[in-house]
Amino acid sequence: MTAETIGLGVLGAGRIGQIHARNIATRIPGARLAALYDPRPGVAEELGGQLGGANVHGSEEGLMADPAVDAVVICSSTDTHARLVEAAAAAGRPIFCEKPISIDLETVDRALEAVDRAEVPLQIGFNRRFDPNFREVRRAVEAGEIGKPEILRITSRAPSPPPLDYIAVSGGLFFDMTIHDFDMARYQTGAEPRSIYAVAGVRVDPRIGEAGDVDTAIVTIEFDNGVYCTIDNSRRAAYGYDQRLEFFGSKGMARAENDRPHRTTLSDESGVHSALPLHFFLERYQTSFRAELQSFVEALGSGRAPEVSGMDGRVPVLMARAANRSVAERRPVSLEEVDGR
Amino acid sequence: MTAETIGLGVLGAGRIGQIHARNIATRIPGARLAALYDPRPGVAEELGGQLGGANVHGSEEGLMADPAVDAVVICSSTDTHARLVEAAAAAGRPIFCEKPISIDLETVDRALEAVDRAEVPLQIGFNRRFDPNFREVRRAVEAGEIGKPEILRITSRAPSPPPLDYIAVSGGLFFDMTIHDFDMARYQTGAEPRSIYAVAGVRVDPRIGEAGDVDTAIVTIEFDNGVYCTIDNSRRAAYGYDQRLEFFGSKGMARAENDRPHRTTLSDESGVHSALPLHFFLERYQTSFRAELQSFVEALGSGRAPEVSGMDGRVPVLMARAANRSVAERRPVSLEEVDGR
Amino acid sequence: MTAETIGLGVLGAGRIGQIHARNIATRIPGARLAALYDPRPGVAEELGGQLGGANVHGSEEGLMADPAVDAVVICSSTDTHARLVEAAAAAGRPIFCEKPISIDLETVDRALEAVDRAEVPLQIGFNRRFDPNFREVRRAVEAGEIGKPEILRITSRAPSPPPLDYIAVSGGLFFDMTIHDFDMARYQTGAEPRSIYAVAGVRVDPRIGEAGDVDTAIVTIEFDNGVYCTIDNSRRAAYGYDQRLEFFGSKGMARAENDRPHRTTLSDESGVHSALPLHFFLERYQTSFRAELQSFVEALGSGRAPEVSGMDGRVPVLMARAANRSVAERRPVSLEEVDGR
Amino acid sequence: MTAETIGLGVLGAGRIGQIHARNIATRIPGARLAALYDPRPGVAEELGGQLGGANVHGSEEGLMADPAVDAVVICSSTDTHARLVEAAAAAGRPIFCEKPISIDLETVDRALEAVDRAEVPLQIGFNRRFDPNFREVRRAVEAGEIGKPEILRITSRAPSPPPLDYIAVSGGLFFDMTIHDFDMARYQTGAEPRSIYAVAGVRVDPRIGEAGDVDTAIVTIEFDNGVYCTIDNSRRAAYGYDQRLEFFGSKGMARAENDRPHRTTLSDESGVHSALPLHFFLERYQTSFRAELQSFVEALGSGRAPEVSGMDGRVPVLMARAANRSVAERRPVSLEEVDGR
Repeated sequence: MTAETIGLGVLGAGRIGQIHARNIATRIPGARLAALYDPRPGVAEELGGQLGGANVHGSEEGLMADPAVDAVVICSSTDTHARLVEAAAAAGRPIFCEKPISIDLETVDRALEAVDRAEVPLQIGFNRRFDPNFREVRRAVEAGEIGKPEILRITSRAPSPPPLDYIAVSGGLFFDMTIHDFDMARYQTGAEPRSIYAVAGVRVDPRIGEAGDVDTAIVTIEFDNGVYCTIDNSRRAAYGYDQRLEFFGSKGMARAENDRPHRTTLSDESGVHSALPLHFFLERYQTSFRAELQSFVEALGSGRAPEVSGMDGRVPVLMARAANRSVAERRPVSLEEVDGR
Repeated sequence: MTAETIGLGVLGAGRIGQIHARNIATRIPGARLAALYDPRPGVAEELGGQLGGANVHGSEEGLMADPAVDAVVICSSTDTHARLVEAAAAAGRPIFCEKPISIDLETVDRALEAVDRAEVPLQIGFNRRFDPNFREVRRAVEAGEIGKPEILRITSRAPSPPPLDYIAVSGGLFFDMTIHDFDMARYQTGAEPRSIYAVAGVRVDPRIGEAGDVDTAIVTIEFDNGVYCTIDNSRRAAYGYDQRLEFFGSKGMARAENDRPHRTTLSDESGVHSALPLHFFLERYQTSFRAELQSFVEALGSGRAPEVSGMDGRVPVLMARAANRSVAERRPVSLEEVDGR
Repeated sequence: MTAETIGLGVLGAGRIGQIHARNIATRIPGARLAALYDPRPGVAEELGGQLGGANVHGSEEGLMADPAVDAVVICSSTDTHARLVEAAAAAGRPIFCEKPISIDLETVDRALEAVDRAEVPLQIGFNRRFDPNFREVRRAVEAGEIGKPEILRITSRAPSPPPLDYIAVSGGLFFDMTIHDFDMARYQTGAEPRSIYAVAGVRVDPRIGEAGDVDTAIVTIEFDNGVYCTIDNSRRAAYGYDQRLEFFGSKGMARAENDRPHRTTLSDESGVHSALPLHFFLERYQTSFRAELQSFVEALGSGRAPEVSGMDGRVPVLMARAANRSVAERRPVSLEEVDGR
Repeated sequence: MTAETIGLGVLGAGRIGQIHARNIATRIPGARLAALYDPRPGVAEELGGQLGGANVHGSEEGLMADPAVDAVVICSSTDTHARLVEAAAAAGRPIFCEKPISIDLETVDRALEAVDRAEVPLQIGFNRRFDPNFREVRRAVEAGEIGKPEILRITSRAPSPPPLDYIAVSGGLFFDMTIHDFDMARYQTGAEPRSIYAVAGVRVDPRIGEAGDVDTAIVTIEFDNGVYCTIDNSRRAAYGYDQRLEFFGSKGMARAENDRPHRTTLSDESGVHSALPLHFFLERYQTSFRAELQSFVEALGSGRAPEVSGMDGRVPVLMARAANRSVAERRPVSLEEVDGR
């Protein structure tokens, strides 16, 4: 805990805020947990106590003004992200913000403009880019090990749907779930999407349909470097959290399989049985939650740009918009069509 | 070689004809190689000699009239299939016909009508249905082991493109290569396609594009039982013949991986190295070529309908037509639109 | 069936004789099924009929004297092997003989001397050397891919014990089952065993113990090139025929896993389920039965020595003898101690 | 950091002491890092500072007398273990002690008697029992999923030998490395060894032989419940830390494979390439180091006996002794022979 560490102030001590705060306090070299804020009485105090102490503030502004806070980590509810990004930018604080900034494109753009004006670093919390499996695929692709990239297949299925009341405010499948896959597709291809075709429907739970959403989808994306990408999504996978991808190119294929809790198999007269994939995203992406903040801290320390930029936060919102329009109009939709700019 | 075996007459002793003839002569219980015909002088004689003898005929009609021939196996070039199906039907002979009957829908329909009128059994040579991996998926699906089927993903990539002069007469990627995947999708789902959306382009070899064809494609199919299916195709896979699928449903997923020539791995300081998939379709589908004829012979013996019907030969032609139109018009195309009926 | 093919006469049309005869008749280029003999009336005639004809003889001597017989394949009961080897050697015929020549060392030596005097090629039927998995391990070892070989682990477990009346005449576990693993160890190491330590007991069926045999064993072998080898055996494996090995050296490890009937997995809420290993040795070693005869025929055609020599038939008998003495005396036993020479 | 947590005092802040201290401070619910001691000036102070503070003592006795210390964690050099165990017992403190207590059996026994007299809980640091892969095997065995256990195979190979000066004081391969496998064999079987046969030699580095040690070994153990166990060891594995086992029984087999840093494979024209096993024991056993202390803390909290007892620390020492004698005398050695009791 020397003066050289970067003091992080965490806004929001909910599920993801606690994870980030705990990682900062104990597992991220070069960082320290400087401050906490949560609107619920006592919550920040309790978390701070468990983690060896942090300045607990009574307001977001208080935290941002705390001289111990070198950068802010925004983990509050989605509808507050854009406002807090703008406030942090105004306070001149580097920002790590959970995804998405907003599902409203104009709100996103206003926040990004504030960041640009303030010239503060901003990293969006697309943590899956830091998953060791996916990162190894990207490394192989960048190293030319698959040759010229051609076909990207992403499978992304959750173990079970979120509560119905969450569905209602989630922004819909494409904004809430596929948005991670949109980001993954951009990360893996290093390219920009041109057009999107999506089919989607209700297969898991009719009440999801009654809430105006879908739970199963197939998306086809054409990228401007010639890569074709397909994504398949389901809100339910009986066998656990299914997060795989494969990237095929002129010289070969890189393929990321699911993590499992152990590598023990049982052979008996009925078959050879292996462990299911990790069931919960907090387990599966445990490493990536830590690694993304580590990367943010290192970016601040070294002066390089954060690995996930504001634009990386903006484009997936456009893609979700295009996917929704594609389903509604049963045709491929170009990104230009849905971009307000 | 008792009187109870079924005598098969093979029309065409090219690559696939030789495989079928050899299997019939030595590895298909209940069948015998009764007769052979090939337009090239001496070819049928030589093959017959290698296989312990068969009646070699100087014309297709001669073979069909041979009383030793209980059923015909049509392995000649694609443009002769429909004509020979009609002739065999007229001769009252059960028919095994290599796929496709024709890439022209009207020609297909005329041949199927002849078969219907003659009331002879007809099996189309979609051999992949008999591959042990894919068959096990279908078994699991039919047994309810994945619950209600929802998403089918098919990967089908050839090790390398066929010769350019073949490309020119192949009918194009969808009729020549994807047609197997269209059949597989119908086999696995047990359902009928409603609409198809396809993107396709030239990624492997620009000369394929100059020949008016594509070599890389992504196809999305909506089936009438609610299953979404995606297919990805490439005319080239550096690592071998890539033929996989996975079928996802409400209770789980069945997943067919590639066959390999052996199960030995090498671990050294650079990694753990496994064998590539079998490289050539004759190796990969060796079992299925034998099993499809075995099934045909058993169908004839028992009086049950062949496992792959004339309609199973027709619908993939429609699907290829729809895929071509989808690429041309950049929109999903319903099967009805392309059906001349 | 040209004059250049090698005519093989098969002695014994039991289970393994039928396999060899069928392979010779249909699947081994360069060979033809010239003649058959079986002591049971009508058996050879029926098999010959199924396979397109062969000279059926009324005696072993008759077959050996048949000018159409270029070489003999001895598939009769084990107690006749040595006698027939000697007779075939006297008749100047190259010999393929199923393992073991005899479980009596003196009888083995007498037969091998007859072969040496007659200077006829002899191949012993240790077919597992021709299994694609094990062969790939040996290829890697010979190519230096594991560096200097150090530790060889062989797992060899049968799905279920043979009938008790067979156990009684089998010669015991080491002569009947482990003998294959002894051969495999010599094949993989390319070296000679120095000493053997074995523990063994009855774990599968007490009646095997009552018959004076064991059903479970662990064997440790020290080879003269410094390799340590361990073998574990069981007469019963609930999950199928378990035939694996791994060879560890200074630069890496080659590892052969079991073959499976298909590569389809099922993921459901209880786990990820794969197919069991092939259950029966005739399925697992189908390829190797064919390949060993192919190799024999090619050796005869090219004049090179057969791949599995008479000495390869002798040493495993010595090893089984040493293993039996080790169990009895609870100490390591050198090969010299048990060699009558 | 409430009063209900258990205060742990760590003796020794070397490699393993730092791991334990860090885990206690940040990742073990119910525990707190109360105190530290290291004989090297400033080392404990620095570690304590990094971890948010702990009472740093100038002597082992000082730490043991600290009222904030509810239990001690002995991570000092092996030659001090027994003395510190006795001192902690005298101080009435529950003890977690790194393995081995001593390689001298009499010293072990004296320490265990002190623990017995003081009636303090003692847990030995055989952390591999807490590895998720091995633990899953044991779970399956205890649940009866493999039926009656019969054959246990353990592979344990280090990526590279330790420094030669460490070899000289290590006690030799069996005491330093195989001792973990001896413990694993007892853990998995839940039984006691009766006799041991070992072969061992120098394959990795002749200087290890010059130092009077071996680097490669095969051990066969007969357990009193009828299980046969084999262990193979090497001080060097080019492909990483190789820690696997399989347990075979009447109904099936449980098999633990190596952990890998990711699950991404690359398929190219030369093969399918997977990641190597984790290379370093601190990575491979990261989870188990944490879990063993967690288990210790829970045992103290609940009053149940620790999972790895003093006797679990004693028997592997006997086993290593028997293995050494077996190699020297080239015969199986019973445990009774080497037990001073």
